[in-house]
Amino acid sequence: MLSDLAISRAAVRRPLHEVAADMGIAPHLLEPYGTAAAKISLAAIDELKSRPRAKYVVVTAITPTPLGSGKTTTTVGLGQGFGQIGKLGIVAIRQPSMGPTFGIKGGAAGGGYSQVVPMEALNLHLTGDMHAVTAAHNLLSAMIGNHLHKGNRLGLDPHEITWRRVLDVNDRELRNIVTGLGGADDGTPRQTGFDISAASEVMALLSLCTSLRDLRERMGRIVVGSTRDGEPVTAEMLKVAGAMTAMLTDAIKPNLMQTVEQTPVLVHCGPFGNIATGNSSVVADLIGIHAGDYLVTEAGFGADIGAEKFFNIKCRASGLTPDAAVLVATVRDLKTHSGKYRVVAGRPLPPEMLAENPDDVLAGAANLRRQIANVRRHGVTPVIAVNAFPTDHPSEHRAILDVAAEEGVRATISHHFTDGGKGAAELAEAVAEACAEPSDYHRLYPDDLPLVDKIKVIAREMYGADGLDVSPLAARQLEKYERAGYGSLPVCIAKTHLSLSADPSIKGAPTGWRLPVREVRASVGAGFIYPICGDMRTMPGLSSAPAAEIIDIDDDGQIVGLS
Amino acid sequence: MLSDLAISRAAVRRPLHEVAADMGIAPHLLEPYGTAAAKISLAAIDELKSRPRAKYVVVTAITPTPLGSGKTTTTVGLGQGFGQIGKLGIVAIRQPSMGPTFGIKGGAAGGGYSQVVPMEALNLHLTGDMHAVTAAHNLLSAMIGNHLHKGNRLGLDPHEITWRRVLDVNDRELRNIVTGLGGADDGTPRQTGFDISAASEVMALLSLCTSLRDLRERMGRIVVGSTRDGEPVTAEMLKVAGAMTAMLTDAIKPNLMQTVEQTPVLVHCGPFGNIATGNSSVVADLIGIHAGDYLVTEAGFGADIGAEKFFNIKCRASGLTPDAAVLVATVRDLKTHSGKYRVVAGRPLPPEMLAENPDDVLAGAANLRRQIANVRRHGVTPVIAVNAFPTDHPSEHRAILDVAAEEGVRATISHHFTDGGKGAAELAEAVAEACAEPSDYHRLYPDDLPLVDKIKVIAREMYGADGLDVSPLAARQLEKYERAGYGSLPVCIAKTHLSLSADPSIKGAPTGWRLPVREVRASVGAGFIYPICGDMRTMPGLSSAPAAEIIDIDDDGQIVGLS
Repeated sequence: MLSDLAISRAAVRRPLHEVAADMGIAPHLLEPYGTAAAKISLAAIDELKSRPRAKYVVVTAITPTPLGSGKTTTTVGLGQGFGQIGKLGIVAIRQPSMGPTFGIKGGAAGGGYSQVVPMEALNLHLTGDMHAVTAAHNLLSAMIGNHLHKGNRLGLDPHEITWRRVLDVNDRELRNIVTGLGGADDGTPRQTGFDISAASEVMALLSLCTSLRDLRERMGRIVVGSTRDGEPVTAEMLKVAGAMTAMLTDAIKPNLMQTVEQTPVLVHCGPFGNIATGNSSVVADLIGIHAGDYLVTEAGFGADIGAEKFFNIKCRASGLTPDAAVLVATVRDLKTHSGKYRVVAGRPLPPEMLAENPDDVLAGAANLRRQIANVRRHGVTPVIAVNAFPTDHPSEHRAILDVAAEEGVRATISHHFTDGGKGAAELAEAVAEACAEPSDYHRLYPDDLPLVDKIKVIAREMYGADGLDVSPLAARQLEKYERAGYGSLPVCIAKTHLSLSADPSIKGAPTGWRLPVREVRASVGAGFIYPICGDMRTMPGLSSAPAAEIIDIDDDGQIVGLS
Repeated sequence: MLSDLAISRAAVRRPLHEVAADMGIAPHLLEPYGTAAAKISLAAIDELKSRPRAKYVVVTAITPTPLGSGKTTTTVGLGQGFGQIGKLGIVAIRQPSMGPTFGIKGGAAGGGYSQVVPMEALNLHLTGDMHAVTAAHNLLSAMIGNHLHKGNRLGLDPHEITWRRVLDVNDRELRNIVTGLGGADDGTPRQTGFDISAASEVMALLSLCTSLRDLRERMGRIVVGSTRDGEPVTAEMLKVAGAMTAMLTDAIKPNLMQTVEQTPVLVHCGPFGNIATGNSSVVADLIGIHAGDYLVTEAGFGADIGAEKFFNIKCRASGLTPDAAVLVATVRDLKTHSGKYRVVAGRPLPPEMLAENPDDVLAGAANLRRQIANVRRHGVTPVIAVNAFPTDHPSEHRAILDVAAEEGVRATISHHFTDGGKGAAELAEAVAEACAEPSDYHRLYPDDLPLVDKIKVIAREMYGADGLDVSPLAARQLEKYERAGYGSLPVCIAKTHLSLSADPSIKGAPTGWRLPVREVRASVGAGFIYPICGDMRTMPGLSSAPAAEIIDIDDDGQIVGLS
């Protein structure tokens, strides 16, 4: 089989205005950005409203290994699969972060014959939205430093500044830094650091806003720290929320691309999956929901995290209600949940994992059962997509199908990686059937539930924990946020995606444990409170052999080495 | 008169493919980026080669005040002026840096009726080239840190790393920082800092390269520091030059925009004027030189700096030969060179400067005379453009014309700010006449002159210094660079633009002084050696009332407050 890059390069692309026309998006709503992508004006939300509403499908997964489950590939494949059954599928995904593209993970365009093309454009800069978020975020950082330097009118406490800086690069040296050294004109010495741009609250609030006006208001609500009297200091008070919004007037427009099979793809925003929502933008989905027969949107990580945040934060912001959820599972995921194997990012699978072993698959089924329950808990019908690998054995696929049958869930083996849309046609049929059933979608908790109880509900009902261990610091913070009037916000739990528990090494579906809540932070602009449960890394590092070392241009000026 | 933003918004723009067609640029060479700009494929350089060569005009200035002389406005106005005399002028300018846009300086689209439109697009992100440079620069920084962290195969000396990080924001707190704090996995603690992105060597080398292949080779030659044995360590040795180039495959393409009068504008690259060349890109000029009757390109700062670097560095790289140079002068510039007034950025002019006073203008003429000589020293014919202000008095204009007549230089009073191209028609006529004379363009020094002598020639013949005061450190560095084989590179002097001397407070055309050479650095990838003569700030700060505070979006979602 050809490499992802070779498949991408060989793909025949359709002019994007034709792709848009099929979606009901008229030329005046479309701004081409090179030949790879076009931006869609937010006016499309209103102009498309009278068109029929698409079925809304979220693609999630069981708890993945560090290698991932091929969720983007499945999302793209399913979109293409709808084409095979005579329906127009619209795909909605996040913009990849460039940090990991040059690190260990590589790009995030899907893979094989289920890819967004051209993959170089998707993986590198795209239309610059990530950079615009970075710039807006760091303008606020500079304005904070300038405010301290120029007399500190607001009485901002330098020790209570929580707003850091961001860059879209894997740079461990920037995690913990001291700034403001030098001389009298070089600012106030302070300990701070950089996060990767995907972890910026600006990214989170861009992904959750519903209009430019809403973006402006959320920007103003960003809390950067507090005064010496403990009062919150906002971007509005620093008079920078307007300029930050002005920097994002293009970035707020979703990007239209296409798959190798010319299926429309909306690419927009890339918030982190742990400290933020891990879901693509609300505005892209508000356009996509009236642009085809099925809108297939991807949620980051496993169903306990990405889908839970999709149901309770993203859908809360958008007002959209999902019709079905695809749970991606792979043989190697389930084998890993048997607890017998250790999978490490950037290294080959343990060879013994490749031997035929349906018993290991069954031994790991508890995680799949829990994630099925997590989707059903929101009143949504799950469909299992087994993302097939050439190293899988038929008996192992059968084991997964047996578990699905026991749970009464539709399931198919999907060959979209090798066969594109054709390989996902059966999956598309199953999803179409699930969508035909009435959706009983509902959120997990009401807005007026106290914050600590919201965390408790998620810990118990999604993760299978017995309860919470709230640190004294976290308890004080929760109390402070309730007092500050943030109690009605949803919670966005920052937890490892590699386990249902807070310990990444615990596989399957552990019971008899409690969720530690170490600390609680607020993204007031984005509109959620995020409890920190375990060590969250918000700035990745590079590996001993980063992908950057093999990426280059060839003699024809084409990019090589991207994967 | 309307505000710049109001004029920009009212401008009727022509579809860019029509603008390009007039330039002989076929649709297959053009990639639209939104409606504001389009990228031009570098294939245009070859495809346009058989078309007639345009006359090549550089716009420079006398030594400006901190308020600037309106050089971009004049460049744009002159381009429009050629339209008034039945010729096609092509304008080539740098991309503005966003840091100053939100700081004290505001945008850099020109002004009044001589503007590049839409000014919001030009001033904010444009097509993302500046961000791509930032990302490529910082990937190298991360790879350096990672190299140290993962065993330091090359034996890079942490104390000898000269490669910093960059961001396009005015953030004084980032000038001097300590990175790599935290724990064992968080890198190696080091003292370092950020420069503004315009000061990145990646920006300088992008502006000087002639092709993607040349870019790749220059990238590999970047020196980031040295080993413990004193051997240079390059981006090639760190295996990151390919990835950095891959990140710039779009950024290398010049951006096509237009003026309020639909004159074509090539916007490309924005290297700093002191530690780098301060000139727009070579590739843009290689396209523009066959795309019209006159290619009008702007060089940063005064003729002693920007034009000198244009003649001796940019033209050396491009192989192009200029036909004329426009020297922009304003009444307030000349009055300031009388030494009687102090002009401060961000503050109104001293009111007494506005009183009619042709004697002050004459008292400041020495600077104008020196800059005329500086242009002539390169065998190029100067034309003086007096950029008229409503507060000027006719007697003051006459004083400048008298000086010009004494020097035998064509001069016109230009009203392009208030009257657009019509106001610059006379200037266009004068420039056309100058271009009709044979050009005797030559560089100031041969490649094989020792580095220290190159500096001496510039100091004497451009700045009017008696000689050099080379510090012991600088002398050692010059010797080191000669030994390393960099002796044939041109020198790019980092000096204040506010004086012909190295002291920004000294006005006019001082004599009897020596140029201090404090330190010498090498931009081996960009291909020049840069002696530091005085304090060079490579990361600006924000003021007490930054422009960011008044920029916002209005109820229609339009950007307001940009200037």
